[in-house]
Amino acid sequence: MPLWDDAQRIIKNAIGAALPDAAVRRALEGIDLSGHKSVILVAIGKAAWQMGRTAKESLGERLGGGVVITKHDHAQGDIPGIAVFEAGHPVPDNDTITATEHALAAVADLTPDDVVLFLVSGGGSALFEAPLIPLEDLVDLTGQLLKSGADITEMNTVRKRLSRVKGGKFAAMVAPANVYAIVLSDILGDPLDMIASGPAHPDTSTCADAVAVINKYAITVSPQTLEALKTETPKVLSNVETIVTGSVRQLCQSAEKTCRALGYTPHVLTSSLRCEASEAGSFLASIAEHWQDTQQSLAFIAGGETVVHLKGTGKGGRNQELALAAAQTLGKCRDTCVFSFGSDGTDGPTDAAGGYVDEHTMLRLNVQGVDCWAQALGNNDAYHALKAVDGLIMTGPTGTNVNDLSVVLIRR
Amino acid sequence: MPLWDDAQRIIKNAIGAALPDAAVRRALEGIDLSGHKSVILVAIGKAAWQMGRTAKESLGERLGGGVVITKHDHAQGDIPGIAVFEAGHPVPDNDTITATEHALAAVADLTPDDVVLFLVSGGGSALFEAPLIPLEDLVDLTGQLLKSGADITEMNTVRKRLSRVKGGKFAAMVAPANVYAIVLSDILGDPLDMIASGPAHPDTSTCADAVAVINKYAITVSPQTLEALKTETPKVLSNVETIVTGSVRQLCQSAEKTCRALGYTPHVLTSSLRCEASEAGSFLASIAEHWQDTQQSLAFIAGGETVVHLKGTGKGGRNQELALAAAQTLGKCRDTCVFSFGSDGTDGPTDAAGGYVDEHTMLRLNVQGVDCWAQALGNNDAYHALKAVDGLIMTGPTGTNVNDLSVVLIRR
Repeated sequence: MPLWDDAQRIIKNAIGAALPDAAVRRALEGIDLSGHKSVILVAIGKAAWQMGRTAKESLGERLGGGVVITKHDHAQGDIPGIAVFEAGHPVPDNDTITATEHALAAVADLTPDDVVLFLVSGGGSALFEAPLIPLEDLVDLTGQLLKSGADITEMNTVRKRLSRVKGGKFAAMVAPANVYAIVLSDILGDPLDMIASGPAHPDTSTCADAVAVINKYAITVSPQTLEALKTETPKVLSNVETIVTGSVRQLCQSAEKTCRALGYTPHVLTSSLRCEASEAGSFLASIAEHWQDTQQSLAFIAGGETVVHLKGTGKGGRNQELALAAAQTLGKCRDTCVFSFGSDGTDGPTDAAGGYVDEHTMLRLNVQGVDCWAQALGNNDAYHALKAVDGLIMTGPTGTNVNDLSVVLIRR
Repeated sequence: MPLWDDAQRIIKNAIGAALPDAAVRRALEGIDLSGHKSVILVAIGKAAWQMGRTAKESLGERLGGGVVITKHDHAQGDIPGIAVFEAGHPVPDNDTITATEHALAAVADLTPDDVVLFLVSGGGSALFEAPLIPLEDLVDLTGQLLKSGADITEMNTVRKRLSRVKGGKFAAMVAPANVYAIVLSDILGDPLDMIASGPAHPDTSTCADAVAVINKYAITVSPQTLEALKTETPKVLSNVETIVTGSVRQLCQSAEKTCRALGYTPHVLTSSLRCEASEAGSFLASIAEHWQDTQQSLAFIAGGETVVHLKGTGKGGRNQELALAAAQTLGKCRDTCVFSFGSDGTDGPTDAAGGYVDEHTMLRLNVQGVDCWAQALGNNDAYHALKAVDGLIMTGPTGTNVNDLSVVLIRR
């Protein structure tokens, strides 16, 4: 099955390119640290340990020390010269406060000749925090906001003001030293002021916005909290350079490269797919159908994160549902497949990373029973349908999480 | 508004290219009729009059006579040397039988040196019929099949056997003369044995299939009908050459050409789009978002026919809904638009052909009211939302119907 083999190769390479280690190594290749006196590491987030270790391996003695803060049970040992901390996620705990104090101490009193290598991954918002108000007040406020229906932008507008590090304040504190921020993005569109609440990114929201949120949802706050809400965040940061890496764009670029190596002419359609999973599958299948007369092998690549609005009680995930939805139209094609997978290796509540269908899938599904395809889609049961026709993509947990990739291959 | 002007040009040219007149003229350019003694015209379908008139204009004295059969009130006058008939649609009537008899008489006793120019458009199935059983039996059987839940393929499998002209039998009857069939396709994928029930196309279904349909749905038939069901249809037709024209592919090709002339690098994604309208809009918007950093002007083109599953009670059509769904994401773009229109000029039960949105649409919608966008989408009320922001595409009825076209323009 050459198409299946090609799919496996594309998947393996894309996940490899999005691993924290590879992402940090690639980003460091673009940074010149030779002019700086001392380089201090601060790594935060669920991938902080892997990112920190890779930085240490790459920079060796150039790294003057620093701090790694990751989630409990996510550190995998010591890193020479670096203090490794574990803390609470998704809710910050006292370990968060302690670890963050160590990080702030490591970057205190720096000079313009010094540089902070700031490695950021998902979960950083909870793992890196020095609140301006008592922790219990912060936890109470967060609870009220969550219950109120405030969206994530509104929550962050408030929380950035109650923190000594969020909303660009960490980078401001580090000045006059410079900051190289390497961000492993797990949010579509790479909104830098959202990832880990943007400790090294200028904040576009204002104190007035924050107070408006408190009033809008009738949140109860202490006088101390209200006072803190009135401290403005940095609007400009001249000492920061940010490199976004390991985002879904990287998945797309890797797939593009592998497809070309395998003889396909690749077309990246998007890196911000957000629509209903099964409809995205139909759209991709219609592209496959249109291009059946092509003389050259073609690949169409879409990165993003589709959604599933559950109608049934079956088992599946958005990637499996996307692939299954393409099966009927692919039945009219030849040497053509559609596959879709999550880069974390876990698609929905299943042990599969995603799904794969080609022109034989529909025939094999029909053997399972009349209307098997329509029933599986209607019941959100893509897992069992694909399992019966060897259409599940299994990778195991991958150690990264930069959204999903969907690919059409037409082999000629 | 240069984007709006570009959109208007693309729409105008695409509809122009899909008009029956233009389609027939283009097809005739590829046919050499000089070697034939006599050329007989048979034109059937809702566009038969326009197609027949254009053939007469193009061929002049080369056309030896013939018959046009169109829907009641669809003929627009005499065509010199051609007999023009009107008949029942969608239900065939006695005028259908009479007109078809005239057509068959016109092509009787031809020689290998003669040729039949057979012009086919939508509606031909009802307008061109010579039943092998009494008309009332055919109407009764059709009624039973419609009620039974049989799909269109099953219906045609039965009906082709009860006709002297359907399922390739017209072309077989014309032999040894040759047939040039010019087909104006209004069905996605151009299934030639389905359009007008394929009078000049080999039939892939069998008598056994037809009897199986009758049994499956417990249809009551007369002994005469049962006997007719056992007459096999032609499986090979060596005297027919078919040119499909004016299909949705032509819309795509025209848009591609116009986009290139306007300075865009065009990419045709598909000509068989079939998914939910609003989700197609999201998908196209995500393509627009991804390509914002492009240095060159880009166009992405998708032809097809999306669907809307009604949730609300508003007014709109699939093209308007597709465009409106793209508005939110387009708000993050610059010099970018998404538009979608039906080539017949009538999108859903509205006087608009479709919808247009660009990066200003969302702002203008927000002025209409908080959540105006989400509410209009939720209530299938794209018409009023787009009307309020000058986003309706108005063409009036166009005289053709070859599905829809959706386009993303990114101008740089």
